[in-house]
Amino acid sequence: METTTVVFNKIITRGYGASGALIGGETLKPMDFERDAPQADELLIEVLYCGVCHSDVHQVENDWKNTIYPCVPGHEVIGRVTYAGEAVTKFKVGDVVGVGCMVDSCKTCSACQEGEEQFCEHPHGPTMTYNGYFIADGSGYNTFGGYSNNLVVKEDFVLRIPVGLDIRKAAPILCAGITTYSPLNHWGVKAGDKVAIVGIGGLGHMGVMIAKAMGAEVTAITTKEEKRELAKELGADSVIVSDNEEEMKRYEKYFNFILVTIPDPFDITPYISLIHRRGSLVTVGLLAPYEKPLNNMEIASQARSVGGSLIGGIAETQEVLDFCAEHNILPQVELIDIPEINEAYEKVKDEDVRFRYVIDMASINNQTAK
Amino acid sequence: METTTVVFNKIITRGYGASGALIGGETLKPMDFERDAPQADELLIEVLYCGVCHSDVHQVENDWKNTIYPCVPGHEVIGRVTYAGEAVTKFKVGDVVGVGCMVDSCKTCSACQEGEEQFCEHPHGPTMTYNGYFIADGSGYNTFGGYSNNLVVKEDFVLRIPVGLDIRKAAPILCAGITTYSPLNHWGVKAGDKVAIVGIGGLGHMGVMIAKAMGAEVTAITTKEEKRELAKELGADSVIVSDNEEEMKRYEKYFNFILVTIPDPFDITPYISLIHRRGSLVTVGLLAPYEKPLNNMEIASQARSVGGSLIGGIAETQEVLDFCAEHNILPQVELIDIPEINEAYEKVKDEDVRFRYVIDMASINNQTAK
Repeated sequence: METTTVVFNKIITRGYGASGALIGGETLKPMDFERDAPQADELLIEVLYCGVCHSDVHQVENDWKNTIYPCVPGHEVIGRVTYAGEAVTKFKVGDVVGVGCMVDSCKTCSACQEGEEQFCEHPHGPTMTYNGYFIADGSGYNTFGGYSNNLVVKEDFVLRIPVGLDIRKAAPILCAGITTYSPLNHWGVKAGDKVAIVGIGGLGHMGVMIAKAMGAEVTAITTKEEKRELAKELGADSVIVSDNEEEMKRYEKYFNFILVTIPDPFDITPYISLIHRRGSLVTVGLLAPYEKPLNNMEIASQARSVGGSLIGGIAETQEVLDFCAEHNILPQVELIDIPEINEAYEKVKDEDVRFRYVIDMASINNQTAK
Repeated sequence: METTTVVFNKIITRGYGASGALIGGETLKPMDFERDAPQADELLIEVLYCGVCHSDVHQVENDWKNTIYPCVPGHEVIGRVTYAGEAVTKFKVGDVVGVGCMVDSCKTCSACQEGEEQFCEHPHGPTMTYNGYFIADGSGYNTFGGYSNNLVVKEDFVLRIPVGLDIRKAAPILCAGITTYSPLNHWGVKAGDKVAIVGIGGLGHMGVMIAKAMGAEVTAITTKEEKRELAKELGADSVIVSDNEEEMKRYEKYFNFILVTIPDPFDITPYISLIHRRGSLVTVGLLAPYEKPLNNMEIASQARSVGGSLIGGIAETQEVLDFCAEHNILPQVELIDIPEINEAYEKVKDEDVRFRYVIDMASINNQTAK
């Protein structure tokens, strides 16, 4: 392989982020920053498209009390390789690639060794794509995400985008897709299982399509009557509007697996009663306590389980990309330009998006940092 | 087979029970009642030994708000067949047999068909051994349990007591044994797994011995320093006293499976942090809400699960009896005579029993109903 000498050590990047918690009239703004130039095992990637995840909103608003500002979000990235370090073997300049929620991990702990980098046992966990702790140089916080014109990522954390996957729409697979695929996969959902997906938003709409492609009988559960038809168009066999007590009652003890994608604290009780004996309910997205204590009478009386799940490992992320390509699953997205991001955040909070915003990042190039 | 004509239709039984909720100075007392004579597929059993389960205390004190009085508890029964109905094929007069928590179920629902009679989908569930709904004759409540000199039970709900199992000690296997064996079995505990048993009482002491016999590395978790040595004698590889923060901290993310046998509402939070990624915690015995809401941050961050379990099916109950015989597992019991039952209940509530009371039911014959 030809040796390339890196002659730059910092890369000027144009991003879009928050300088502090968004309170009152504050908004995300253009901001320039520097990235370390790629190491031998790293890629420089031109960001083409970046999905807008509900986590981005939680993070810039410091809902989890761990945000480091400035904060440049974005962890659903589709891009093109513009430079490959000399030790890179799996990608070449020009390849269309994906980057999800992680850009590095310790690689030595048992979680990393088992391909579950999302559970990396490094004291700081894996290096998240934004608001993350740089493991490699020990410099600590703060990584900057995909609301920017480039990313620098270890090749081991870069995903192949299968031929045929529409790159304008694929970005949400890198978080919403893996976050729903991983629990369906790990809890062993199989053809014929009765599966409910609760919350038909960015995550949930992927969950419906993926569970359906796995051969499950899929029921969408939504708070909104107006999502009934949308959910059926996604492939749901049935739809329950959750405040319809008669509909909820009809599905008592029905589901082998329930995937809940509600991002804010809620009462889990009405959903527990829908789980079939020895079935499970897994909540993704919620990183906080439920509203009320679990009643072990309800749990034990049918040997039910309640679990949680967090994105997925890198190999599993490749798996869901390949699975989506194979089954013609594509996120339903609304493409926006980066200046529309603040309005988009409001709509994400109002659940007024069908079903995921994706930023066409070419739009960042005519923005000016203020 | 020789035909036997049943010439009696009621059997006078001497029991020991509560005429109403035990408040103030009320106690369990001798009481006579009638049982229906055995049907063709039923056995009449002389009760020899009956275990004292924490559920008995909850039930007679109406803690679950569903007790029908009079209440004669007892669902860990070792007895001898004194009469076998004409259609009985699996047992004969003189056999030593066991009866657990159930004496009948609908046999037609999917749970019964799958051998999980404890989840029988009859509107009243399976017929519990006491405080149960008679399915067979539709007469409804109220069954009377094993604190009595006889029982009448469908042969399908009668267990073989393996040769070599000490019948004075075996009774607790029929509830405490199956209640701990079933989750260890269903959640797939295998040799080498790291298992914690929380609460080293009637259930927990069986859990330690059974998990150890399954080949797991077993840690006992107790609130009581004085149980440290007892737990080791049962076979625990290690012991944690739960208010020792340093010990708890040392086992963070350690256990593949945690079985919690605490019978009253408690805070599950400190135990969640002990679960290894993709591990589970299952609570048995508690039929009420936990003290605090689950934090899905704690659950999802390691893809953990929290489940519950309820006794086990009839086939699985036979399995645990055979398993205990094979592995020389015997409950540690204190034998009492029936007049000591009220004092025993106080000690059960004070957790002052090593580890299970068993009533020598021969002692009921010289009691007089008042």
